[in-house]
Amino acid sequence: MNNFRFYNPTEIIFGKGTIAKLKERLPKKAKILLLYGGGSIKHNGVYDQVIAALNKHRVVEFGGIEPNPDYSTLMKAVKEVRKKKIDFLLAVGGGSVIDGAKFIALASKYEGDNPWHLLSHSEARNATSALPLAVVLTLPATGSEFNRNCVISRREKRAKLSFTSDLVFPQFSILDPETTYTLPVKQIRNGIVDAFIHTTEQYLTYPAGGIVQDRQAEALLLALIECAPLAMQTDPVNYDGRANYMWAASNALNHLISMGVPGDWATHGIGHELTALYGLDHAETLAVVLPWLLWYKREQKKEKLLQCGERVFGVKTGTTEERIDRTITAISAFFHSLGMPTALSSYGIDPDEAAAIVEKRLVKRGATRGEYNDIDGPAAAAILRMSR
Amino acid sequence: MNNFRFYNPTEIIFGKGTIAKLKERLPKKAKILLLYGGGSIKHNGVYDQVIAALNKHRVVEFGGIEPNPDYSTLMKAVKEVRKKKIDFLLAVGGGSVIDGAKFIALASKYEGDNPWHLLSHSEARNATSALPLAVVLTLPATGSEFNRNCVISRREKRAKLSFTSDLVFPQFSILDPETTYTLPVKQIRNGIVDAFIHTTEQYLTYPAGGIVQDRQAEALLLALIECAPLAMQTDPVNYDGRANYMWAASNALNHLISMGVPGDWATHGIGHELTALYGLDHAETLAVVLPWLLWYKREQKKEKLLQCGERVFGVKTGTTEERIDRTITAISAFFHSLGMPTALSSYGIDPDEAAAIVEKRLVKRGATRGEYNDIDGPAAAAILRMSR
Repeated sequence: MNNFRFYNPTEIIFGKGTIAKLKERLPKKAKILLLYGGGSIKHNGVYDQVIAALNKHRVVEFGGIEPNPDYSTLMKAVKEVRKKKIDFLLAVGGGSVIDGAKFIALASKYEGDNPWHLLSHSEARNATSALPLAVVLTLPATGSEFNRNCVISRREKRAKLSFTSDLVFPQFSILDPETTYTLPVKQIRNGIVDAFIHTTEQYLTYPAGGIVQDRQAEALLLALIECAPLAMQTDPVNYDGRANYMWAASNALNHLISMGVPGDWATHGIGHELTALYGLDHAETLAVVLPWLLWYKREQKKEKLLQCGERVFGVKTGTTEERIDRTITAISAFFHSLGMPTALSSYGIDPDEAAAIVEKRLVKRGATRGEYNDIDGPAAAAILRMSR
Repeated sequence: MNNFRFYNPTEIIFGKGTIAKLKERLPKKAKILLLYGGGSIKHNGVYDQVIAALNKHRVVEFGGIEPNPDYSTLMKAVKEVRKKKIDFLLAVGGGSVIDGAKFIALASKYEGDNPWHLLSHSEARNATSALPLAVVLTLPATGSEFNRNCVISRREKRAKLSFTSDLVFPQFSILDPETTYTLPVKQIRNGIVDAFIHTTEQYLTYPAGGIVQDRQAEALLLALIECAPLAMQTDPVNYDGRANYMWAASNALNHLISMGVPGDWATHGIGHELTALYGLDHAETLAVVLPWLLWYKREQKKEKLLQCGERVFGVKTGTTEERIDRTITAISAFFHSLGMPTALSSYGIDPDEAAAIVEKRLVKRGATRGEYNDIDGPAAAAILRMSR
């Protein structure tokens, strides 16, 4: 096991009716910027609950944060923060709104020349203060409500960059599973697959002596498989199904299972390219990459694939190669059971063409990923060519 | 799943050589009270590492905190805090030293008439400030390094009371598995059993829709079973064995697996009586209670016992009663594999006599525990009579 540092001070307030707790939890005298996305919260009752809880607070609204939040949008919010003397951010939404709020929290206190440098020049690392931030989660998937990660896009530069900073841990996050009741089934499916793949990316590498971490990762995979059919129910919705999906997604990326063990974020790396090129949902891109990445790296990942097969999918017999085959097939079959395709061709995308373009983009940037940092442009292309 | 609040801001610094980080992590200007126990840290190199790291800090020492730390000892430390104007506590040791430090942290800032009321009158609940506190863990077992719990004894009143307070979360805890290298094997055994039973007490109750929590609890049980033989190795010691045991014990009582689900702390409740009466180690008392408590409550705990049997011990066939028998037997067999007895009679204690005394003590106090709060004096007596 490698040395590690674990730190996660975000307070989770979980359960039915918890949005009302905003009233007591947000500082009485704070001037709050309420951040949200495309406005779905105005139709599903969440906005009304938030406003009701904050009827004694001073609130300024800033809506319209898009999926893959854009730098230009967020800088408008930063301007608003300064003009209106905002001292607390409240993100109501999913990963995009939360990540947007994290950037706004840092950028509002940034004293350098160019706030983009927080991302492009890793200046977030040197930041010493940020606006405090809280979350009402409405779309469980990214785990952003329970971590210090932030991914921001800048469309004019075709860039999608990230930072991590202890300063942007949400002070608290409210997770009410009932906020998911009005989500389209496709979003639930996406969230489950996203959480599943976040987990495999911290687990399907090579054995590193993390007995506890491996078991904790397997626990999340097993929990996601177990709760998925319940979470997908819509008529009627199943509270415990939604609650477990929500809690599993938060746990999948709160850093715990990655402590002291290697990670392989190549699926995310390649997936981001596919979103940029073809506009697929984030989870859709992950699902058309992961199974093929596992096939491609089956030799390097052999021990962990066998372990995953046995412990998560009950694959205990057969030759090594057969067991690996059946494990990867079982992962794909789980995605299919949720209606999630695992091949680029399912979206009418030519795998050879996608492979060629992604290879060129990655080679140009010199981007590599994987637990051995060996998944480069050509490797990504080989993986994508299999996704048919 | 029930509503819950999860909050744990303690920073964990884990791995080889991490004690040296005290130098940079403790505030430069702080006057530090270094708290420790019977002095084993002076023989195993830990004290030297701590002192070397703090050679630029002002340090006052307070040793001699006994197992089951006593109020009178701790109040001497509080006096020292005030006299020497201490502003930071550093606990170097196991659960007793850490719990002692937590009490000192609150009592040093207490402004009421009687610091004992922090425990006896639950005044800890109303506390608004505490001295900051950090930990160097040397005996993994209680999880105190990663939670806000504190248990204090007062021998002159034959009392053992506890409190919980957000104010006493350690600011950071250093977990270096190499500090366990000089522990007697008996202590390792005790720590593993303690962590295992902490986990079952948050898990072996009734199904409450906590799919994630159940899997996370099972992960810890499986990890403890897997790492136990490695952790018990002494010649040579096995780093990963010790590291996983240490990390599992911290995770077993950091509150995560108890979120939103019921608990049954009756094993601890009865165990505390046995420590008071017969001086058995804490973990020894738990191991002579748990299997028999599970036999006694087998009907009430049926679903979870069957689930535990299947998922943790691979018990998949047989009638319901056979499977429950085999599950409980498997738990006992795990303890036996570590050299841990599961019967009072192994210690030359008459179960009937112990049952009679414990029953009287619990009835007098009106103490009840269990997920249905139905394990009272007579129930505890019935459980102890089986421990032969």
